Amino acid sequence: MKRTLLKDLIENEETKISGFIERIRDTKYMLFVIVKDRTGFIQVSLDKNINADLIKKLENVIAGSVIEFTGKMVLSEYVKQGGREFLPTELKVLSNAEPSPLEETANIDTRLDYRWIDLRTDKNQLMLNVQSTLVQGMRDYLYKEDFTEIHTPKLISTASESGSSVFEVQYFDRKAYLAQSPQFYKQMAIASGLERIFEVAPAFRAENSNTNRHTTEFTSFDLEFAYIDSYEDVMDMEEDLIIAGLTLVKEKYGDIIKEVFDKEVIIPTKPFPRIKLQDLYKELEKNYGYKIPEFDVGDMNAEAEGLAYKYAMEKYGHEFIFITDFAKTKRAFYHMRKDDVPQGYDLIWRGTEITTGAQREHRYDILKAQCDEKGLGKDVEFYLQFFKYGCPPHGGFAIGVDRLTMLLLGIPSLKEEMFIFRGPNRLEP
Amino acid sequence: MKRTLLKDLIENEETKISGFIERIRDTKYMLFVIVKDRTGFIQVSLDKNINADLIKKLENVIAGSVIEFTGKMVLSEYVKQGGREFLPTELKVLSNAEPSPLEETANIDTRLDYRWIDLRTDKNQLMLNVQSTLVQGMRDYLYKEDFTEIHTPKLISTASESGSSVFEVQYFDRKAYLAQSPQFYKQMAIASGLERIFEVAPAFRAENSNTNRHTTEFTSFDLEFAYIDSYEDVMDMEEDLIIAGLTLVKEKYGDIIKEVFDKEVIIPTKPFPRIKLQDLYKELEKNYGYKIPEFDVGDMNAEAEGLAYKYAMEKYGHEFIFITDFAKTKRAFYHMRKDDVPQGYDLIWRGTEITTGAQREHRYDILKAQCDEKGLGKDVEFYLQFFKYGCPPHGGFAIGVDRLTMLLLGIPSLKEEMFIFRGPNRLEP
Repeated sequence: MKRTLLKDLIENEETKISGFIERIRDTKYMLFVIVKDRTGFIQVSLDKNINADLIKKLENVIAGSVIEFTGKMVLSEYVKQGGREFLPTELKVLSNAEPSPLEETANIDTRLDYRWIDLRTDKNQLMLNVQSTLVQGMRDYLYKEDFTEIHTPKLISTASESGSSVFEVQYFDRKAYLAQSPQFYKQMAIASGLERIFEVAPAFRAENSNTNRHTTEFTSFDLEFAYIDSYEDVMDMEEDLIIAGLTLVKEKYGDIIKEVFDKEVIIPTKPFPRIKLQDLYKELEKNYGYKIPEFDVGDMNAEAEGLAYKYAMEKYGHEFIFITDFAKTKRAFYHMRKDDVPQGYDLIWRGTEITTGAQREHRYDILKAQCDEKGLGKDVEFYLQFFKYGCPPHGGFAIGVDRLTMLLLGIPSLKEEMFIFRGPNRLEP
Repeated sequence: MKRTLLKDLIENEETKISGFIERIRDTKYMLFVIVKDRTGFIQVSLDKNINADLIKKLENVIAGSVIEFTGKMVLSEYVKQGGREFLPTELKVLSNAEPSPLEETANIDTRLDYRWIDLRTDKNQLMLNVQSTLVQGMRDYLYKEDFTEIHTPKLISTASESGSSVFEVQYFDRKAYLAQSPQFYKQMAIASGLERIFEVAPAFRAENSNTNRHTTEFTSFDLEFAYIDSYEDVMDMEEDLIIAGLTLVKEKYGDIIKEVFDKEVIIPTKPFPRIKLQDLYKELEKNYGYKIPEFDVGDMNAEAEGLAYKYAMEKYGHEFIFITDFAKTKRAFYHMRKDDVPQGYDLIWRGTEITTGAQREHRYDILKAQCDEKGLGKDVEFYLQFFKYGCPPHGGFAIGVDRLTMLLLGIPSLKEEMFIFRGPNRLEP
């Protein structure tokens, strides 16, 4: 007999169910086993007279064990949650659990030590499914828009954008490095004639910092596309991409997210508000008395991001805001410039930057000059070659999938959001 | 004016096109520029009298450059291929190429040095699009089947399955390793209550071998699912997955694959032939006089794989064949055993193994005994913990996306098939 999912049970129909034992309740005449599968839970009711043989098999079986019951679901007005119970005629213990070492009050670091147990909560299961669906919605949109998925190498021969935060790998008798981002290879794909590409893959940062927003390994949703007229096209694309992802999440999980995370999934309207950095500075000063510190002039910082969100909500009733016209000293060398202004943007959502996007400089001579200006040498030589033999104008951006999910569900840190977190002090499990 | 794709041009309609210059042909009265975009090509015809100003802009512009033309497409019986030509009124050189250093007769290693130029051929563009579509079809199937996509860490703390072929990473003041496969973490996901998961991500192998089938970094399509009754369920799932991927490829690119690669995309029928290893040995000996060498008894080798394909075609008219009942000494410790026989399989397609799949051992005590038997120690200790606190029965498999595409299109080596190949002597570009 094939297994039936708990959501699909039909009254009085002989069937087989299986799942984790959520808990066991022992009363004078009855033993109740709460079983949970990916679609829900049910109370399995064992009568101590009728089911004595089955109950014997449950000696020493505790919550966390995995079990299979054969029997029938019946509707019952006595069962509190769901009004359904399962009356078994047979059972099989599929996996016998030891007592869980993870207490409900454990702190996040202990929880990470036992991540596979920690993830069993309804909340965490939902979180992982929401992330999967968000990425699905975004990918589906790109397939429809004629994008090609590529897989770029993570083992690279130079320390790429900046040497300081790259992991070094022993590669036979030489050194390799782990890619911080697929930026250079996304652009190589454009030079190779692929006009629209994306990649969802791990990116690595050797940053020795312990914050809620940082991790040494994360999943980056990257795209790049050619024949754009300006970075406005890149912002348009990002709007559509985010709307597509959120729409699928809302469709599938909107109600349950509201219930479990108390968060509304809001599908943003187009266009998202767009503001120049200098104008934003003025608005933040006028409205909130906030003045950007000298050190950050030409750029954003965490406080300004928070206030930009506040401003976007108050002025436009919008959760997203694009900020443009950063200082060239604060942007990567490969951003195209027009009148010395980088042709790119940051996108802020719910107070946090989720993307840096830009039109890229595709003209070899100008790109080389911008490299030199930033003092980048040998490490970008191979990259510059991509632009020598013809390359279309193009632009793109990257979104951190984990950060996006974190903001969507209001989860306070990447440690809690990621399937398995990696940080300077965290390589396990 | 927005760009129109070459496939979408409408006769006599004023529009803008852009793409790479494929070649330029100079005749007495006319200059012909062949322009190519992702949807095709067109001949742009410039009359030396009428278009003198445009032709002046094309001085020093050579093939490989990227260009934009404004004008009209007209139908013309004089144009050989396609019967269309483009009559321009304006042009803009978007990127000026230097002469390509890559000669048409270059060997594969030189081609890899200039991979971004090498990839511009119709053949290579198709190859990358086919791979993307294959994975899309497979993913779509899994989403429909209620699978969750996960992202497992590639930085791990132990040398995992076997210490010999793992890359070492300098991880702050300690060592980390690059995951050879997500196997342990896929199984962790099952223990965490996710019943059906998949991942498409890079996997790393520090193997110092230079063959057509090996690379140090490849894209692995991995899945794992719970509450199976036996490894037969795993084979069923793999059949459906492969059929879904090939079906989408055939739909979208079947004809052009036939034309460009001279390969038929054949949608296999279900069930794929299944044979026990011992029975296969007998058949290979009977039909082809092939006897497995002593060293490989209990396992397959490349020659046996080739013959198994021949046998499957001759006996069943099928391109695929599952081989089961390998020797336990030849299989990973985590394969479930029944009467000492590993409950798994290899899948052979067109003479090459594309998958090893199995039901996994989910019972802690038995799994631990199988670990000990293989002499695995500290490196798997963390992994064993996943099974102590309850874990459903489960199974799964992995497919190398690059190898699959290679076999589909009849490409002779991974060097040619991968977007960017990585090998012991190849870290660039």
